[in-house]
Amino acid sequence: MPKEEIINLALRRGLFYPAAEIYPNSPSGFWDFGPDGETIRRKIVEFWRNELVEKEHFVEIYGAQILPEAVFKASGHLDSFNDPIVQCNKCKSLNRADKIIADVTKGIVPESMSTPELDSLIKKHNVKCPKCKSDQLDKVKTFNMMMKVNIGATGDLTSYLRPETCQSIFLDFARVYKTSRQTLPLGIAQAGASFRNEIAPRNTLLRERELGQMEIEIFFDPDKINDFEKFDDVKDYKLNLMLLKDGKVSKVKCSDAVKKKIVSGKLVAYYLARVQQLYERYGIPTEKIRFRELDDDERAFYAKETWDFEIETDLGWIELIANNYRTDYDLKGHSAGSKQDLSVVENGKKFMPHVFEISAGIDRTFYVLLDNAFKKEKRGPEERSFLDLNPRIAPYLVAVFPLVKKDGIKEKAEELYQLLNSYEFDSYYDEKGSIGKRYARVDEIGVPYVITVDYDTMKDGTVTLRERNSMEQKRVKIDTLPELLWKLHLGKTTIKEI
Amino acid sequence: MPKEEIINLALRRGLFYPAAEIYPNSPSGFWDFGPDGETIRRKIVEFWRNELVEKEHFVEIYGAQILPEAVFKASGHLDSFNDPIVQCNKCKSLNRADKIIADVTKGIVPESMSTPELDSLIKKHNVKCPKCKSDQLDKVKTFNMMMKVNIGATGDLTSYLRPETCQSIFLDFARVYKTSRQTLPLGIAQAGASFRNEIAPRNTLLRERELGQMEIEIFFDPDKINDFEKFDDVKDYKLNLMLLKDGKVSKVKCSDAVKKKIVSGKLVAYYLARVQQLYERYGIPTEKIRFRELDDDERAFYAKETWDFEIETDLGWIELIANNYRTDYDLKGHSAGSKQDLSVVENGKKFMPHVFEISAGIDRTFYVLLDNAFKKEKRGPEERSFLDLNPRIAPYLVAVFPLVKKDGIKEKAEELYQLLNSYEFDSYYDEKGSIGKRYARVDEIGVPYVITVDYDTMKDGTVTLRERNSMEQKRVKIDTLPELLWKLHLGKTTIKEI
Repeated sequence: MPKEEIINLALRRGLFYPAAEIYPNSPSGFWDFGPDGETIRRKIVEFWRNELVEKEHFVEIYGAQILPEAVFKASGHLDSFNDPIVQCNKCKSLNRADKIIADVTKGIVPESMSTPELDSLIKKHNVKCPKCKSDQLDKVKTFNMMMKVNIGATGDLTSYLRPETCQSIFLDFARVYKTSRQTLPLGIAQAGASFRNEIAPRNTLLRERELGQMEIEIFFDPDKINDFEKFDDVKDYKLNLMLLKDGKVSKVKCSDAVKKKIVSGKLVAYYLARVQQLYERYGIPTEKIRFRELDDDERAFYAKETWDFEIETDLGWIELIANNYRTDYDLKGHSAGSKQDLSVVENGKKFMPHVFEISAGIDRTFYVLLDNAFKKEKRGPEERSFLDLNPRIAPYLVAVFPLVKKDGIKEKAEELYQLLNSYEFDSYYDEKGSIGKRYARVDEIGVPYVITVDYDTMKDGTVTLRERNSMEQKRVKIDTLPELLWKLHLGKTTIKEI
Repeated sequence: MPKEEIINLALRRGLFYPAAEIYPNSPSGFWDFGPDGETIRRKIVEFWRNELVEKEHFVEIYGAQILPEAVFKASGHLDSFNDPIVQCNKCKSLNRADKIIADVTKGIVPESMSTPELDSLIKKHNVKCPKCKSDQLDKVKTFNMMMKVNIGATGDLTSYLRPETCQSIFLDFARVYKTSRQTLPLGIAQAGASFRNEIAPRNTLLRERELGQMEIEIFFDPDKINDFEKFDDVKDYKLNLMLLKDGKVSKVKCSDAVKKKIVSGKLVAYYLARVQQLYERYGIPTEKIRFRELDDDERAFYAKETWDFEIETDLGWIELIANNYRTDYDLKGHSAGSKQDLSVVENGKKFMPHVFEISAGIDRTFYVLLDNAFKKEKRGPEERSFLDLNPRIAPYLVAVFPLVKKDGIKEKAEELYQLLNSYEFDSYYDEKGSIGKRYARVDEIGVPYVITVDYDTMKDGTVTLRERNSMEQKRVKIDTLPELLWKLHLGKTTIKEI
């Protein structure tokens, strides 16, 4: 679906909109999620937790968002978490050097490129200031994206908002390893916000200054990267891999990816498979999915091997997840920085665990799921639009509509709403306007089921249950509803089977 | 339970611990939540959402945590969100003036007290520096608790981390009011982090620099504060009110609170009742609950009427929720600040909605629930400790234990774990050590049910189901487990009824 249509839907229904939008000149790159958007966003995380974190026996933490300076000295972020920027000497506007070069050359500018290299590219391609069109661009400088916060009465406790949630995971590794009594491999997950002072936030939820991440760091013994029992469950599963050598997407069996050394080992192939399966279950068609292999120049400073998990949208391929083999970079850095030995002893061997990371964007997933789910269809003379969302991602499982507000029907509908609430179903209540308009409104935000309370309900205790995609309706007894909705939510039955 | 025992449990089991604890001199007031702590914390929010937000048809948003300076000029926080601090001229240490005076006088120092008033109290009571014991305290100064963040390539977009989540709610009111098509009263909720540069963070989760809040702002027509139909549901319900006039807790019927003008109107009494009921359902005994009426000096700068919801713990009465009648303070301020008219038109009348706020602390609720749930009991010669948590707050609904690791029992237990996962039950798996020790470990973190897979399971498909408090065990068929656990979770059946 075109970006404009998605933004239009988002603003019209309050799914998401700029933070502090009533104030002029509020900084860009900050977004608020309105009622239905907040719910979808939360369910994206719950789905990840249930379908990946819990299935794989990972554990989850919740860490503070502000961390002291020493952490980011050790992590390398104060030195290396930089963007190249260039100022126009004429109009004084600042821009990301790599971005304005890429706009002119229509190519990708490697993250690792030095400032002199960028200077010569600007010269070579005669890149001009995108604002005033002058050619008076200054030399390229590096710009650190960390956001500083001064803590304490004299502000002397220099701290930073975390640029990635995973730093808490590395800091907490020793305690979690000890208190969870697990042996390696141990996966530690966290969902939350990260903060990056982007020069050029853009494309709504795709490039933000405050961004939602759901990250998993899997700590393992590097000698055992191929000693991984669960691998057998996925050995015949096919990964969509876009390899550097030919730039094409090939379907590669996990067992072949390991055998041909396309990935570092079974553990890596296994989790790539789990990532692809997760997004297939979210509702993304397999053909819109690829893992793009990154070369040395493109990878982040801490990564030895990176597979960018990308999904095809109307805006092109969007990176949702960085799958990074971070080696022992982080634990080694924090061991040195904190003077605490973060190595472990297992089976008589002392070693520093290696880390494989699955770093997913929550807001990017949100955008891509909207792009994928937004459907329009002709039904006779009328067109309707709806979000074809997985019921577990939909903002509400069910909407409750009283046919009319009189004759006790409104009260009956409210009673039913409270019954569904007592079963923890997320329900939506609406009594305003015609039933047709109310259906259209909940279709548009992806609510999969609607219950209508009408005059028959008052007589025989039945209601109408309508499914979003098929628009099929069934008459069901209220006392069978809780179990039925539970199974519909879980995908353990369908409207056709009722 | 004494604070020391709670901290001991928290550190031993990784429920919570200082952020960046491996680094020496990390700033205090920041806490991380380990696996089981993260889960309990999340479930506290889910319970609030289900039992208050959704039951009352409130809507929920998720707002950016960083907001521009103009917002906090208009909200009054840049001028008024201050603590009084005093420096020692001898040892240079900084302290909160009201706190060190209160420590000496054993009394409460009103929030509204001016700096000269505090100076004279220090003189009158001969208050000394708490660190070096000298009497060379300087004049009291005001200290603003907002945390500043500079955004943009030149850092010229001065912004702040929000000191209360509700500011996004006020900023988003107009869009949510429009897009949700509701009429007033309209409740908008938000759960998330807030940030306050406290001089003296203390008592672990009770006074933090980064704190979790779950806030609800109810927008209403002030002329209709007593035109509130739902009030009848609570009119005979008794609130535990500690009134200013006598300083004692009295049980006051909601109808009397309104009639005697103890509260501003039916709407206020109704929501105070819902708050008290929410915490009773969390598991707090009624006699440990009170609403303390605040006088003019104690209230925050935006509040006309405040009821502090407090719970009795081993540390004394702890404030969990500020229930504030904020009037039109916020919408008026942001209308002026943003030059957008935030008033509404209903029934032909144009007016600025008033706000009643229910501002609850997530981390404080966590601490208080631990304090309340931590039990020790003698069973014969042995003592056991357990957390008597509501099953919906417990970190996991159920633990799955294979009796032994051999003869296919481990694989059967894993299969059962995955079955429970497919029903979205939060499950915990442990195969290490004796069954007795495993029971003790999950009791200690409050897991209400344990399933043991044993040799009989392999023969007849049954497992042992054990309840935490009664330690009662029942033998049940695996295929009945999903529905049974669902109803146990919801409190719709009990172990005795099986």
